[in-house]
Amino acid sequence: MLFTDFGLHGPYTGQVKAALHQMAPGIPVVDLFADAPVGNPKSSAYLLAAYAEWFAAGTVFLCVVDPGVGGIRPALILEADRRWYVGPGNGLFELVQRRAGTTRSWDIDWKPERLSASFHGRDLFAPVAAMLARGEPPPGRPHKDDSDRQADWPDDLGEIVYIDHFGNAMTGLRVTQLLPAARLVVAGRILERARTFSEREPGTSFWYENSNGLAEIAVNQGRADRELGLSIGVPVEIVS
Amino acid sequence: MLFTDFGLHGPYTGQVKAALHQMAPGIPVVDLFADAPVGNPKSSAYLLAAYAEWFAAGTVFLCVVDPGVGGIRPALILEADRRWYVGPGNGLFELVQRRAGTTRSWDIDWKPERLSASFHGRDLFAPVAAMLARGEPPPGRPHKDDSDRQADWPDDLGEIVYIDHFGNAMTGLRVTQLLPAARLVVAGRILERARTFSEREPGTSFWYENSNGLAEIAVNQGRADRELGLSIGVPVEIVS
Amino acid sequence: MLFTDFGLHGPYTGQVKAALHQMAPGIPVVDLFADAPVGNPKSSAYLLAAYAEWFAAGTVFLCVVDPGVGGIRPALILEADRRWYVGPGNGLFELVQRRAGTTRSWDIDWKPERLSASFHGRDLFAPVAAMLARGEPPPGRPHKDDSDRQADWPDDLGEIVYIDHFGNAMTGLRVTQLLPAARLVVAGRILERARTFSEREPGTSFWYENSNGLAEIAVNQGRADRELGLSIGVPVEIVS
Repeated sequence: MLFTDFGLHGPYTGQVKAALHQMAPGIPVVDLFADAPVGNPKSSAYLLAAYAEWFAAGTVFLCVVDPGVGGIRPALILEADRRWYVGPGNGLFELVQRRAGTTRSWDIDWKPERLSASFHGRDLFAPVAAMLARGEPPPGRPHKDDSDRQADWPDDLGEIVYIDHFGNAMTGLRVTQLLPAARLVVAGRILERARTFSEREPGTSFWYENSNGLAEIAVNQGRADRELGLSIGVPVEIVS
Repeated sequence: MLFTDFGLHGPYTGQVKAALHQMAPGIPVVDLFADAPVGNPKSSAYLLAAYAEWFAAGTVFLCVVDPGVGGIRPALILEADRRWYVGPGNGLFELVQRRAGTTRSWDIDWKPERLSASFHGRDLFAPVAAMLARGEPPPGRPHKDDSDRQADWPDDLGEIVYIDHFGNAMTGLRVTQLLPAARLVVAGRILERARTFSEREPGTSFWYENSNGLAEIAVNQGRADRELGLSIGVPVEIVS
Repeated sequence: MLFTDFGLHGPYTGQVKAALHQMAPGIPVVDLFADAPVGNPKSSAYLLAAYAEWFAAGTVFLCVVDPGVGGIRPALILEADRRWYVGPGNGLFELVQRRAGTTRSWDIDWKPERLSASFHGRDLFAPVAAMLARGEPPPGRPHKDDSDRQADWPDDLGEIVYIDHFGNAMTGLRVTQLLPAARLVVAGRILERARTFSEREPGTSFWYENSNGLAEIAVNQGRADRELGLSIGVPVEIVS
């Protein structure tokens, strides 16, 4: 399962997939997000935690969202509630790790023959993800250092973390943590909750629980991003 | 075969593919259209009918284009000329059904363990498509009601139904239903027919039979959408 | 491996993949570029040559970038350094061929049952690529004519050949052919070399060796295309 900010059209995702098919033949490779918030591990961390939960035990997530291309940060393997995560130690796994019942993590110490300065997704993380997908043990040593943890990030993030293809705006707020009648304030508008789109008149804005449990802002038969002026990072407040 | 308005980059197509791979391992999953006209089952119906014909018997099409997310409409399985279609009964299958030699349809009565309010593509239609792809019988009861049929839709649609990546504009008109010398009028321009792009000077607009039998409007080495001001729903008239 | 200007969302890539899965079951199909420079075989030729090198022997590249849709040009199979290439003889393979140690080429003489005027990618090149992927001999006769060669194209191209998802601008210049301290002049700016993004202050523009050996122009935590005004075809000069 790929969770990256690489995009699908250019060469990055294709080379990662080619590496995975070569090293783990017969195991399906699927893009979960190829357009995670570019260079923004914080927003991405709340998305990843919400979406990874839906997948079966044993799934391997290859995750790369990294503002400091080629900079110094640990290369990690995380096992959390029997799912595997491979990627940079820049906070991207913070919420997965914080919410999981059981976790273990490793610093990758396997080295590829050829490691480019800018494409660890292809050269380092993909081969490691392939090893895990084949059922091999994590090629690393137990991760002791906590420098990659982000203790100051909240449990739920009152911000827009993703705008989807339809213009709907996902927040970093889990609906299970909100009161049923909570209202959300965003861009100067107070939004009520709806159960489904068709409950509201065309053109009305509202929030609802999306199919992965996040509070999401939408306009029935419209684009919430344009009509409300939303983009990643816009703050969202909760009022009751 | 996926025919949706979900887009490829965000999480929707990925979750549908993950569900299919899990329930029908080893069966390839391919996107036919991931950018069918958003929330527009009528335009989509003419596209789907033209493109589905190219595929082999036994192919399963998982189709979701649905303006009324979470609203009330039947969940259908259609068998038409030995191809399978799974999706909402909102007219999306109207032209496939009308043009097919033999058809049978079922109301899905299988229920998933967890059904989200907004993502039937993942929770309901993908598992049903996987069952059909594995060769299992349709999990439903014969569909009797005709409330999903759209008898007032024409056999061929004189409108732009899709703009492709190159800026070419597909119409809902089958070339087999046009006279060989027919001209098309769109956005105030009269267009002659060409057999291929290279028959015309760069910059010239024309129509031609695309590789799936639809009349398509193009500009040699240009973008017809921008140069002629075309978008989905723009009317197209036939003159001889 | 698909290298095309078809885009991913519309029907073209999906139909090519469906044809490949049907004729070469079990062999993975991956998009390398689906957004090669539209109708621009020259820029594409430098990209393809740089990216193909990374792939294993035996890989089959199905390549379609063709301004003269339906026009007259040979349909080719090229074997170069034990990788296979299938596509139009319009210069797209020029740099692969020129840089390879050993090459052989064939004019395709296999004919499909149904050949559309505008979609040779699906009807001709995909079936031929599938035959090669299955290990069959090239379905053609040795290519003798040199009319598809482009002797006047340079060994390295001092132009922008691709803009990626992050706004980075690839040139057609191989870094192995540049002096280590070379500077690049583009859009009136003189750019120094950096090893990695994080070596430079946010907002600084520079060039670096990308993960496939091309000189690439970037802005740390910014978009080089917008900030420097770059697009495909913009000239790039080398100064020392």
